[in-house]
Amino acid sequence: MSGLEKFFYPGSVAVVGASRARGKAGNTVVANILEFGFEGEVFPINPGASEILGLRAYPGISDLPKTPDLLVAVLPRDMTAGLMAECARSGIENVIVPAAGFSDAGVEGRRLEEEVMSVARRAGITVMGPNSIGTVCTGGKLATSIVTLDRMRAGDVSLFGQTGMFSSGIARWIETEEQFRISKIACLGNKAGVDESDLLEYLGSDDDTRVIGMYTEGVRDGRRFAQALKGAAARKPVLVLKSGNTESGVRAISSHTGALAGSDDVFSGLAAQAGALRVADFEEMFDLAKAFSFCPLPAGPGVGVVSITGVGCVLSADAAGGMGLELPSPAGETLAGMREVLPAWAPVSNPADIWAGIEASGAEASYRAVAGALIDDPSVHSLVAIFTLIPESRIDAAALFGSLRERHPEKPLAAVLMAGDARMRLEWKQELESSGIPAYPWPERAMRSIAALWKFADLPGSDYRSVR
Amino acid sequence: MSGLEKFFYPGSVAVVGASRARGKAGNTVVANILEFGFEGEVFPINPGASEILGLRAYPGISDLPKTPDLLVAVLPRDMTAGLMAECARSGIENVIVPAAGFSDAGVEGRRLEEEVMSVARRAGITVMGPNSIGTVCTGGKLATSIVTLDRMRAGDVSLFGQTGMFSSGIARWIETEEQFRISKIACLGNKAGVDESDLLEYLGSDDDTRVIGMYTEGVRDGRRFAQALKGAAARKPVLVLKSGNTESGVRAISSHTGALAGSDDVFSGLAAQAGALRVADFEEMFDLAKAFSFCPLPAGPGVGVVSITGVGCVLSADAAGGMGLELPSPAGETLAGMREVLPAWAPVSNPADIWAGIEASGAEASYRAVAGALIDDPSVHSLVAIFTLIPESRIDAAALFGSLRERHPEKPLAAVLMAGDARMRLEWKQELESSGIPAYPWPERAMRSIAALWKFADLPGSDYRSVR
Repeated sequence: MSGLEKFFYPGSVAVVGASRARGKAGNTVVANILEFGFEGEVFPINPGASEILGLRAYPGISDLPKTPDLLVAVLPRDMTAGLMAECARSGIENVIVPAAGFSDAGVEGRRLEEEVMSVARRAGITVMGPNSIGTVCTGGKLATSIVTLDRMRAGDVSLFGQTGMFSSGIARWIETEEQFRISKIACLGNKAGVDESDLLEYLGSDDDTRVIGMYTEGVRDGRRFAQALKGAAARKPVLVLKSGNTESGVRAISSHTGALAGSDDVFSGLAAQAGALRVADFEEMFDLAKAFSFCPLPAGPGVGVVSITGVGCVLSADAAGGMGLELPSPAGETLAGMREVLPAWAPVSNPADIWAGIEASGAEASYRAVAGALIDDPSVHSLVAIFTLIPESRIDAAALFGSLRERHPEKPLAAVLMAGDARMRLEWKQELESSGIPAYPWPERAMRSIAALWKFADLPGSDYRSVR
Repeated sequence: MSGLEKFFYPGSVAVVGASRARGKAGNTVVANILEFGFEGEVFPINPGASEILGLRAYPGISDLPKTPDLLVAVLPRDMTAGLMAECARSGIENVIVPAAGFSDAGVEGRRLEEEVMSVARRAGITVMGPNSIGTVCTGGKLATSIVTLDRMRAGDVSLFGQTGMFSSGIARWIETEEQFRISKIACLGNKAGVDESDLLEYLGSDDDTRVIGMYTEGVRDGRRFAQALKGAAARKPVLVLKSGNTESGVRAISSHTGALAGSDDVFSGLAAQAGALRVADFEEMFDLAKAFSFCPLPAGPGVGVVSITGVGCVLSADAAGGMGLELPSPAGETLAGMREVLPAWAPVSNPADIWAGIEASGAEASYRAVAGALIDDPSVHSLVAIFTLIPESRIDAAALFGSLRERHPEKPLAAVLMAGDARMRLEWKQELESSGIPAYPWPERAMRSIAALWKFADLPGSDYRSVR
């Protein structure tokens, strides 16, 4: 599947069905390509227009000055087979098909899909779709989504799967609300051509991709998938969201992308054996993606927790117990450092409740002393600091984390911004995450993310740490 | 425990340790009382000040012009027993003790707590705390929190438990970021006096409280608690977050509030038998609280789902299957209504993926036709509409929900704002929730909330619906 490279880094892209009308998918694709700053050639194809969005338009594929590396086919489903035959004649090797109404739409749709694919197979054309919303490649300065996107900053998280959300709502959400960044996105739709295994093989050896997140509704060739997953997961974290866990989910899948969901237990076993990390939902996928994108892998299961509130300690400890993490008892020296800011009567332990310290010594001094002592403890391999954003807890959190990281760049750090003032939460989240500290709204979600880092670091028979 | 009323609706409040110094807890309590617009008398007590925040200050309890209904004791722990003796002499019956360092702090702390409580018991004083951050009562225009709060709007959700988060970070978060509103909050701290059972009895028959959320680290008198929980849960939803599910959680609890966590399984059984809804974390507590505060209870398990994206359908269906909800097949008339906006080839079912409709007929028409047809279907008892906030999906969602609710005020409605543009998400969330439509970030969380409504409505041997 060497052709996959051209879906992300083509030298030239043609858009069939390109349109001058704003809001039409054929206009949006061209607009997205321009918005992302694509540096190759772009060929809008429309028999009724000579210019689209400032680009010269061509009446048909055969009129193009050269064979494009990639073609996006923004056409109704019934015209797709004919177009594929044209692509075959012109020697085009990579085609994205956004149209739905194929194997996602009953018997007639399945027949049409088979017709399109048999043309493609005979001609050696690699098809992404049908029912694909398109791709994003920040390194290639390209987006082929049929949904309007704003330019995205480049990062190291790559996403793919059967849902169009990745190249539409999720891309937009990450760009506007999150601080981790995307390398590549591919929406596979019905995956009649390119499938999960192809992407795993490609992204597994893609140097720009440090973390992979994938969504699937079930795989066709289980053996090949298992191999591809194992290959990718041996080199980088692969976060897998698989739906179809319940009977009603399975029914919904068949009308979404026509996939066969397969046995959920079998899939779980397969993912675990491959060393992939199965996630329960998108929330967990992105929590973990952020941690893997921002943090080093911990050298052990020991977590130090410093919290403004006792409930933060208790919930963190509960979570740790269920997730394979440990909360090591601090060494004597560590305890001495923590006691500096606490009243004499206050218990000193890990997790560390510093409310009494905040009352006695102020928030800034308390977080610094306690987090500083914990991070220096050799049994502490990661550190979680829990804040609630009330006027009493206002500190320079970015500076705090900066100094902790400077002392121990090898230890993962995470922040919990637990409730508190909405505006302060947003400001803190942005400031922390733009300096590479993942921030979570509740302690359990931070612990779950640290647990995933440790689980991945601790997988047997692998040598992940050397990769990072 | 008739005295509990005075913790929320006192005619007069005294604050011992009241301070002129901004940032001191003794200043904050007085400032909070004023900020909330308390209409009773306020007596700051400070031997060194004649006026605090514009109020006449008194040197001691014995100097007050009358016996206050409630006293907040902002004093170090070592002075608390002496103060309690003074309260006894002055006939004060309700005291909040914010100081920590009692049973949360080892042997000496436990001894001090026993000393304070034996004075209180002999004098018939009801104590909230020690280690209580204080109370909020929006109806009583009162906050006694030692953490700075801004005035909060009145609502019907009441919260209590061992954590001070409720009267600090969580209160502030709800007021600034959420659109459900609070009736009462009580932080019980070490609960040497007032405990969970007292609050359940009080709030269970409080007309201003429609939903109860509680956090506990373990109860002492299991029999009484079971009875109180059953009594409250028979009248309104009680959402219970109980920590100490793992060994490390249990250890952390003992240094937080000194509580004995008890067996988690026993607690689960007890909660289920009482008809309370146990939640896994704060995120779930507030998701559910919002649903119960905003929605009627559904008449059955049938949910209609309309989604811009197929993955929204699949994830909703997966969730439904695991939560006791059903996704009924639409009746013939319903299907006809849905088909109006969809291309002929598009599959029509519940959950309904309307992407093809949005492309063919626009987002506004598609949501209206499909959601409208589903809500009219008698087998659909609740409706979830899933959006992703991209330019292509811009519609007047508040108007859509308004018209659905007008037609079927008896059916719960929920929105999912799944990814998409951050600013649009915030605007939509605020607009929908301020008109009483709960909005969730992912489909699973909406389905979980609807499932809780149905679970509560469906509990055997009760007659909840008549209460609402």
